[in-house]
Amino acid sequence: MKFVLPILLLIVTSLAASAQPGLLTPATEATARQLMEEALASDLAWDIVESLTTEVGPRLAGSEAEARARDWGSELGEQLNFDRVMIEEFELPYWERGDMSITMTAPYRQALYGTALGGSGASPQSEELEAEIAYFRTVDELMAVEDSALIGRIAFVDGDAIVPSQTGAGYGSANQRRRIGWQHAQRAGAEALVVRSVGSDSHRFPHTGMMTPDGTEWADMPVIAVSNPDADHLRRLYAAGNSIRLDLHSSAGWRGESRSGNVVLDLIGREKPEEIVLIGGHLDSWDLGTGAVDDGAGIAITTAAAALIAQLPQRPRRTIRVVMFGAEEVGLRGAQAYAETHASELAAHQVATESDFGAGNIWQLVSNVSEAGTPAINAIGKIIAPLGIIRGGSDVPGGGPDISPMAARGVPTINLMQDGMDYFDLHHTPDDTLDKIDPEHLAQNVAAYVVFAYLAAELDVEFRE
Amino acid sequence: MKFVLPILLLIVTSLAASAQPGLLTPATEATARQLMEEALASDLAWDIVESLTTEVGPRLAGSEAEARARDWGSELGEQLNFDRVMIEEFELPYWERGDMSITMTAPYRQALYGTALGGSGASPQSEELEAEIAYFRTVDELMAVEDSALIGRIAFVDGDAIVPSQTGAGYGSANQRRRIGWQHAQRAGAEALVVRSVGSDSHRFPHTGMMTPDGTEWADMPVIAVSNPDADHLRRLYAAGNSIRLDLHSSAGWRGESRSGNVVLDLIGREKPEEIVLIGGHLDSWDLGTGAVDDGAGIAITTAAAALIAQLPQRPRRTIRVVMFGAEEVGLRGAQAYAETHASELAAHQVATESDFGAGNIWQLVSNVSEAGTPAINAIGKIIAPLGIIRGGSDVPGGGPDISPMAARGVPTINLMQDGMDYFDLHHTPDDTLDKIDPEHLAQNVAAYVVFAYLAAELDVEFRE
Repeated sequence: MKFVLPILLLIVTSLAASAQPGLLTPATEATARQLMEEALASDLAWDIVESLTTEVGPRLAGSEAEARARDWGSELGEQLNFDRVMIEEFELPYWERGDMSITMTAPYRQALYGTALGGSGASPQSEELEAEIAYFRTVDELMAVEDSALIGRIAFVDGDAIVPSQTGAGYGSANQRRRIGWQHAQRAGAEALVVRSVGSDSHRFPHTGMMTPDGTEWADMPVIAVSNPDADHLRRLYAAGNSIRLDLHSSAGWRGESRSGNVVLDLIGREKPEEIVLIGGHLDSWDLGTGAVDDGAGIAITTAAAALIAQLPQRPRRTIRVVMFGAEEVGLRGAQAYAETHASELAAHQVATESDFGAGNIWQLVSNVSEAGTPAINAIGKIIAPLGIIRGGSDVPGGGPDISPMAARGVPTINLMQDGMDYFDLHHTPDDTLDKIDPEHLAQNVAAYVVFAYLAAELDVEFRE
Repeated sequence: MKFVLPILLLIVTSLAASAQPGLLTPATEATARQLMEEALASDLAWDIVESLTTEVGPRLAGSEAEARARDWGSELGEQLNFDRVMIEEFELPYWERGDMSITMTAPYRQALYGTALGGSGASPQSEELEAEIAYFRTVDELMAVEDSALIGRIAFVDGDAIVPSQTGAGYGSANQRRRIGWQHAQRAGAEALVVRSVGSDSHRFPHTGMMTPDGTEWADMPVIAVSNPDADHLRRLYAAGNSIRLDLHSSAGWRGESRSGNVVLDLIGREKPEEIVLIGGHLDSWDLGTGAVDDGAGIAITTAAAALIAQLPQRPRRTIRVVMFGAEEVGLRGAQAYAETHASELAAHQVATESDFGAGNIWQLVSNVSEAGTPAINAIGKIIAPLGIIRGGSDVPGGGPDISPMAARGVPTINLMQDGMDYFDLHHTPDDTLDKIDPEHLAQNVAAYVVFAYLAAELDVEFRE
């Protein structure tokens, strides 16, 4: 990989500005605005996500590919002039998809498009798994089933496609059939569980995703998601009174311990190197696509934003840290490892946020920082308003999945909320590939992140209570 | 299946009208307009395509499923009050997809989304097929390769995604890599041929389709189409100077003789039963999707149009024939069988057309009938103009793929051209499923077909030269 960095055309009033602590000076604001313009004109984030998805490819947590991604991230950090590049490895249980097939055998034979859910088990090695389905319109119906009521049957939980929305609001409830369904199917003695994919699209793609929180418990049965059109098909056949039978095979399962890791890239603060403004994304991806929108985009946006700041004649006052989290998809393993490894530094983390909701335009800035720090966030909001970003609530917790363990330990957060209208069309599917990213939207994201990261690190404002 | 037919609210001026031969009378026009209104308000076509895709499913030419589709078509004809229902079987060579896998093994390991092309052969049973690719930017580059130049290599023909268009104009040229590529890969001694899918989408779906005209010749090697995003991925890796290796397996091949057939549904003309107005679609489909837009929609549109006419108090003057052609996808086998079986009647076929371009709105009517018959087509064009249909050329040959053998033998044609903007996103892919059909567009199609079929059969106009 080779990246062409823009030569910043900054009139270095920022040097003068740096002498003045406190809220936004005209010179600091001018630097922030110039960084924003540079970001809008730069291809750097696109080049990064193209490199990651093309040169590394899919990056399942704990896999050899994820290890290559760490090396890639570390090399990228060196190339982009970060001051400190660290790979922080950790252990985790490794789940692998293996092969899978699912075929309807009655009322007639038809191959379905399915995939194993993360944490699911294998079908019996020695015998065929072929059985009639027990149909459940919703996961609530499955949850109400009596113990041992499904012996000899395959449970099928239908549900509905997610209604697309800017915020992705429908994901949490739809996700219950993936998160909770298997426990009840297992309790009722089912041979396997098949669920409608948790997605908003109407394409023949199955959506994967973790069933179990972190690999500390798992299903002893195959759990397969089928695409929305396939689930529609089964629903229609069931409604017409057909007995439906499925034949399925899966060799998915936990394969013992493996290694993952976080890649940490620092621009060391010139005055307060111990104080940290943290941005990042996650480096691992599901294995069906190439992890472009989830979360190559987040890696690219945040790394590119920091790399533009690295071109300034001097470092901002505080340290800007980009974290490429490992093993997010399998239970926030990297986020937990980060919070543990850096436990003693967390009190010096001023503010943190993650880009992990695709590559759509940012439309809102929300925050959850101290009262004293909120005017600075408001000032950032004003500068990025021309990007189409409105200033939302100043008491909205969040910051992204990998931020949650540190937020729980008191690290303030902001969230640059992306338009998720098509996110659950792509998320966790084979269709999460580079062509789904709009380079102009990506640049808009970098423009917002660069302003945030620069000012949060430069302004002499306390974001912690 | 059970279909609810609308009760027609016709004031039966059509009886009086029928006494007057020649061009359009007010009463005949009123009947045509009322049929058009009924069609717009009717769910019949939707119910038919839902039934076909759900109760029968995918219908590969020569398969058991296609035989079930013939029984379904015949039963449908009885239910919808056709006067004569015939299944006309014929023999054909049977190609089956079998299983397939394609994995990139260098520069790293990644599964690709591919499918065997129709007529392609199997990989060696006893050994793995793993080789470096020889990259060809276009099929023309492959065609220029010297004999035996590709021994030990897998040829990869890239090309470009089809540019979406109303007419689907880009399909013919893109199709060359599917139709012609394999002959040159074979001549050059390649182990296998992999091509970019012939499609306009950017989804992770491979597109299948026949490589060879009719199963009379075939490739001795695997020929695999990979999705546009996969082809993009290989292109980027190749451009970055990587040596790319693929591992592939396919058990596709010809399986000997099987049977297909046409289903013929007639509304027998009250005055000139021997004269035929022919409409139809094809009953077979590729096996990856459920054949909703290709061509369940065409079956539904034309059958529903004729079924509305069957509700009139009396039959039109000429016979209206709906043909559900078999084995279109594998080389117009049903069309050829029809032209042979009905050779002696072809001179009495007044005009013919097929609906086989999806389920988009009809936007243009073109024709290729006698000078004497053209004013009647113009009159039909005026009646359907409020549906948004313009009157195009009156000397445009066509009428649909299954019409071509009879058109070559002198049968006049018309074409109700559908908007194909998204057709090559769906065509021949797993994504050709019921949810892609807009019921309102489908009803607009029926409205146009019912006017055409009724008036072409009722007006005492000679469409043949």
